[in-house]
Amino acid sequence: MDIRIVLSQMNVIVGDLPGNARKIIAEIKKADDMQADIILFPELTVCGYPPMDLILEADFVRANEKIINEIAAGTKNTIALVGCISRHDGKRWNSIAVMQNGKIIDFVRKTNLPTYDVFDELRYFEPNERVRPVPVTIRQKTVMLGIEICEDLWDERYHIKVTRELAEQGADIILNASASPYSRGKCRNRIARVREKVKQFKLPFIYVNLVGGQDELIFDGNSFAMDANGRIAVHLPSFEEATTCCRLTDGISDHPFVEKDIDEDEELYSALKTGIRDYFYKSGFKDAVIGLSGGIDSALVAVLAAEALGPDHVYAYALPSRFSSGHSLTDAELCARNLKIHYDVISIEPLYELFIRSLEKPFTGTVPGITEENLQARIRGTILMSIANKKNALLLTTGNKTELALGYCTMYGDMCGALAPISDMNKLEVYRLSRYINRLFAYDLIPESTLNKIPSAELAEGQYDPFDYDLVSPLVDDLLESDKSLDQIMADSGDPELVARVYELIRINEYKRWQAAPGLKVSAKAFGQGRRMPLVNHFKI
Amino acid sequence: MDIRIVLSQMNVIVGDLPGNARKIIAEIKKADDMQADIILFPELTVCGYPPMDLILEADFVRANEKIINEIAAGTKNTIALVGCISRHDGKRWNSIAVMQNGKIIDFVRKTNLPTYDVFDELRYFEPNERVRPVPVTIRQKTVMLGIEICEDLWDERYHIKVTRELAEQGADIILNASASPYSRGKCRNRIARVREKVKQFKLPFIYVNLVGGQDELIFDGNSFAMDANGRIAVHLPSFEEATTCCRLTDGISDHPFVEKDIDEDEELYSALKTGIRDYFYKSGFKDAVIGLSGGIDSALVAVLAAEALGPDHVYAYALPSRFSSGHSLTDAELCARNLKIHYDVISIEPLYELFIRSLEKPFTGTVPGITEENLQARIRGTILMSIANKKNALLLTTGNKTELALGYCTMYGDMCGALAPISDMNKLEVYRLSRYINRLFAYDLIPESTLNKIPSAELAEGQYDPFDYDLVSPLVDDLLESDKSLDQIMADSGDPELVARVYELIRINEYKRWQAAPGLKVSAKAFGQGRRMPLVNHFKI
Repeated sequence: MDIRIVLSQMNVIVGDLPGNARKIIAEIKKADDMQADIILFPELTVCGYPPMDLILEADFVRANEKIINEIAAGTKNTIALVGCISRHDGKRWNSIAVMQNGKIIDFVRKTNLPTYDVFDELRYFEPNERVRPVPVTIRQKTVMLGIEICEDLWDERYHIKVTRELAEQGADIILNASASPYSRGKCRNRIARVREKVKQFKLPFIYVNLVGGQDELIFDGNSFAMDANGRIAVHLPSFEEATTCCRLTDGISDHPFVEKDIDEDEELYSALKTGIRDYFYKSGFKDAVIGLSGGIDSALVAVLAAEALGPDHVYAYALPSRFSSGHSLTDAELCARNLKIHYDVISIEPLYELFIRSLEKPFTGTVPGITEENLQARIRGTILMSIANKKNALLLTTGNKTELALGYCTMYGDMCGALAPISDMNKLEVYRLSRYINRLFAYDLIPESTLNKIPSAELAEGQYDPFDYDLVSPLVDDLLESDKSLDQIMADSGDPELVARVYELIRINEYKRWQAAPGLKVSAKAFGQGRRMPLVNHFKI
Repeated sequence: MDIRIVLSQMNVIVGDLPGNARKIIAEIKKADDMQADIILFPELTVCGYPPMDLILEADFVRANEKIINEIAAGTKNTIALVGCISRHDGKRWNSIAVMQNGKIIDFVRKTNLPTYDVFDELRYFEPNERVRPVPVTIRQKTVMLGIEICEDLWDERYHIKVTRELAEQGADIILNASASPYSRGKCRNRIARVREKVKQFKLPFIYVNLVGGQDELIFDGNSFAMDANGRIAVHLPSFEEATTCCRLTDGISDHPFVEKDIDEDEELYSALKTGIRDYFYKSGFKDAVIGLSGGIDSALVAVLAAEALGPDHVYAYALPSRFSSGHSLTDAELCARNLKIHYDVISIEPLYELFIRSLEKPFTGTVPGITEENLQARIRGTILMSIANKKNALLLTTGNKTELALGYCTMYGDMCGALAPISDMNKLEVYRLSRYINRLFAYDLIPESTLNKIPSAELAEGQYDPFDYDLVSPLVDDLLESDKSLDQIMADSGDPELVARVYELIRINEYKRWQAAPGLKVSAKAFGQGRRMPLVNHFKI
C-alpha cells in the first residue's frame, strides 16, 4: 500500500507551550491538506528539548498535558505523532502522543533513557518497559506503527532493543522522533545506524530531528526517510526548519534521493551561526559586543556574529594596552571593516595605570606577574560588559576549547560573556574554520596576518602562547573524549611528560570552567553541562 | 551474643586514593587493636564523594580497584566494610567491600541510585538487583550482616525496599554506609527514619556518614548506632572526624546514649565553617579576601572566614564610592577590628570616574542607570580579585540566596569569588545566624548598626534594596523547594502579584547563576549543581 508521511523538522522554544502548539497545529493542518497519512514531529516538540528541571514543576507538566489535549482536539484524518510529556500516578514519561480525529489514540513511551554527557533523562522520566507497535487505521487498513524515541535507536548500551522488538512484533514502519544535538560527523552516524536497522529488519525508517539552538546545544535537523531497500527517500536540510512529505509504496520510495555529501566545515559553520542566532533571538537580544584583539579567535567570533545577527548588530572594540603590538590594532580594524561591523578603540592604558596606583599598598614588595596580566583582561571585561549593558546587547566571549582546557584565560576578564561561540573548538579547528570562511568568501575576510601571526595574549612584554597547539590541541581533545587510559595516550603521543602536564592543567583549572559562560557544543565531549568534574580533586595517575 | 562495631566517621578528599587509603588502614588497625568485630566506613570512602565524572575515567576506576585490594590485604580479624567502586564486565557499582583476614569476602552493591537534586548516580553506576545479607564469621558464629548504602534506607520512591528485604532474609543487624550531605534538620530526619526501620524489623541499625566539605556539599557526620529497642547507643559528633566503638549484646546496648538536642543555628554555623575550611584546605589555600561593605552579608561571611581560617588569614577591604554612606566605612572597620582580621580601605571613586571618561563615546546620549551601578560592582570585583591573585588567596563572594534568586547581584562584580559561603541562606536566615553569633560571642561581634540598618547596595543616590525581605525571602524558598503549584503559592501568600513577580525574576536571572561561584549547600534545594534550569525558557504560567 501507499503511505504518505510528513516529516516536520521544527525549531521550537523551550517552555513556549502556546507558541510551539501554534506551530504544531499549523503543521498538522498542512499535512491534512496534503492528505498525508502521518505527520511525525521531533521528541518533546510541545515543550522543547531539553526542558531540564522545568519538568519538576508540577505546573509545567500540567500545562503540557493541557496543550497536548488541545492539539489533539484539532486533529482530523492525518495521524499526528507529537512529542510530549505524559504522566500517570505521579510518574512521568517522555512520550509520543498518537492522535487522530480529535483524540489521543495512544501514548508511546521512551524506553531507553540516556544519562550520559548532557543527558539526565532518568532524573525526570520513568523508562518504558513494554515495547509494542501501535495499530492505526489508514484508509481502511490496519497499519502497525513502530514508534520509538531518539535513544531507542542507539541501543547498544541498553538491555531492550527497541527497533528489534518493534520489528518482531509486526511493525510495518519505524518512526523515530529525535532531539539529537549536532556534533561533527553525527549525521553520518545516524544514517549508518538507521541503514543497519533497515537492512536487518527490511522496514522503512522515518527519522525526524529537532532543529535550532537551545543554550549550549544545537540541533541540526537532518531528518530523513530511508526506504525498506536502505535508500534515502528524503533528506531534510540541516540547521533550518523544513517540512517534507515522503511517499512510500509497500515501504519503497519511487524517487530515492541522491545522497548528499556532507561538508563538515560547512556544517560546523552553519551550526555555530545557528547557535548564536537562536540564543540571541530566543532570549530577546539583537546586538552583540565583541572585543577584537587582532587575533584569530576574536576574528572568527566576529565573522560568526556578523553572519548570524547581521553586521549592523555587532559592536567590536579594540582595547589596546602598552603590550599591544601595532598589528593588533590594524588587524582588528581591517577585520571589522571587512565585516562592516561597528568598530572603535578604547585604550585600557590609563585605567591599568590607575588600578596599579590604587593597588599600590596591597602590591607593595611584589613583582609584576600573572596578577597584572589578569588585571588587563579584567579591565577589558569590565569595559565590554559596560558597553553591552548600556546597549542592551550580549557580550560574546571568544576563547577556544584548548585555552579553556588549559586555563589559559582570565575569569571575569576574557571569560566574560553571555555566550562562548567557539569554546568547544580547539585551536586547530579555529584556524581550519577561518581558512574555510576565507575560501567561502573568496578573499581574506579574516586578515591573512591574523591567520599567520604567532598566537599571543599580549598581556606582557614579548609574550607568546606557551603551547605548541599542533601538539596540545589534539591532545586535549583526546584526554577529554577518548576512552583510552592515560598510559595509552602517553604511549601514543610519544611525549609522556607533555601528556602529564596537559592532564594536570585540565584538572587544576576546573574551577575556571565552573564559572564559564555557556558554550556552543560542537564536539562529542564539550566542557559545560555534559562534563561534571569535582573542583576539589586530588586524583593523580 | 556480643558484637563490637566501630563507626569510623571520616573526612576524605575526593580523588586522593593513597591518602584516603592510609587513613582507612590506620582506622582498621585501630579497630583490630580494640578487638572489634566490624568496622564500618562511609559510602565511597576510598575515593571520596561525589567523584562525579572522575568515575568515567578508566584509570580512576582501576586505581580504586588496586587500592581496595591493598587495603584488604592488610586486614586481620576485624571485618572491614569499605565504600568503593566495583566493576565487572564494563559495568560499575557503588559498593561496599567486605574484607577480613587479608581478603575481600564479598562486594555489596547499592540498590537504589538517586538521580534527583545533586545526585546523578545512574550516570555512573548500575543498580543492584539482588538484595541479600552477607554471612560472616564472628567468634565462630555465623552472623548475617544486612549491609546497605545510603539511599537504600530512603526507599519510599523505589520499588525495592532494601532494609525490609535484608530483614526478611535473616539479617542480624543493618549497617548503612552513607554520604549524606547536610541540610537543616536532616540529622533529625535520619534518626526518625532509622527508628522507623528498627521498630518495624526489631534489628539494631548502624549508620555511618561521611564528614567534611566537598565543593558545594558539606557532610555532617552525625553517625549513630541504634539498638534493637530503638535507643541511640552512640551518636558521633557533627562536622568532625570521629571513631567510636559500639557494643551490642543480642542487639541491645547496655549504655544507651542520652539523645542530644540539636541546635539548628549551631549546626548551620558549624556547617558553614566546615564548608569554608575544607574548601580552602583541600584546594591548598590558606588566605581569604573579602569585600566588607558595612552590610550584614559581608559581615557574616567575614565572621565565618575568620572562624574557619583564623583571623590572620582573612584580608578585608572596604571599597567606598561616592554613594557609600558614612556608616558603611565605620561599620566595616568595627567589624574587622572585632574579628581581628586585616582591614584596609581602597576608594573606587577615581577608577569609577576614569571608566566613565573612557566610556564617554559609547555612553553618549544615555542616562546613568544599571550599567553604572554594575560598573561600580565590577571595579570592586577587579580590585578584590587582583589582591586575591597577588596574595595567592581565594576571594569569598558574599551574596545571599534571596539576592541570587532575584538577580539582585552583578556578574563579574559582587558575584566574583571562588566560593559563596552564604549563597544558600535567605536574607532572614542571614540575620538569624548573625544574631546567633552575637549571642554566642556574648557581644556585638557583628556591629548592631550593621544588623539594624536598612539593606542597601549603595550603588546609586538614596538607593535601598527594592524588596521586603520578610515577604520575599520565604517566598523565594517556597518557589524553589515546595511541590505546591504556583496557584497554591499565590493563594497561600495573599499577594499573587508579588508571587508572579518573584517567579519571573527567578526565571529571567538563570543566566547569572549559570556563571555563579560554587555555593555551600545548606538547604533542601540550593542553586548550583542540584538545580538545572534552561537559560532560554519561555514558560509562563
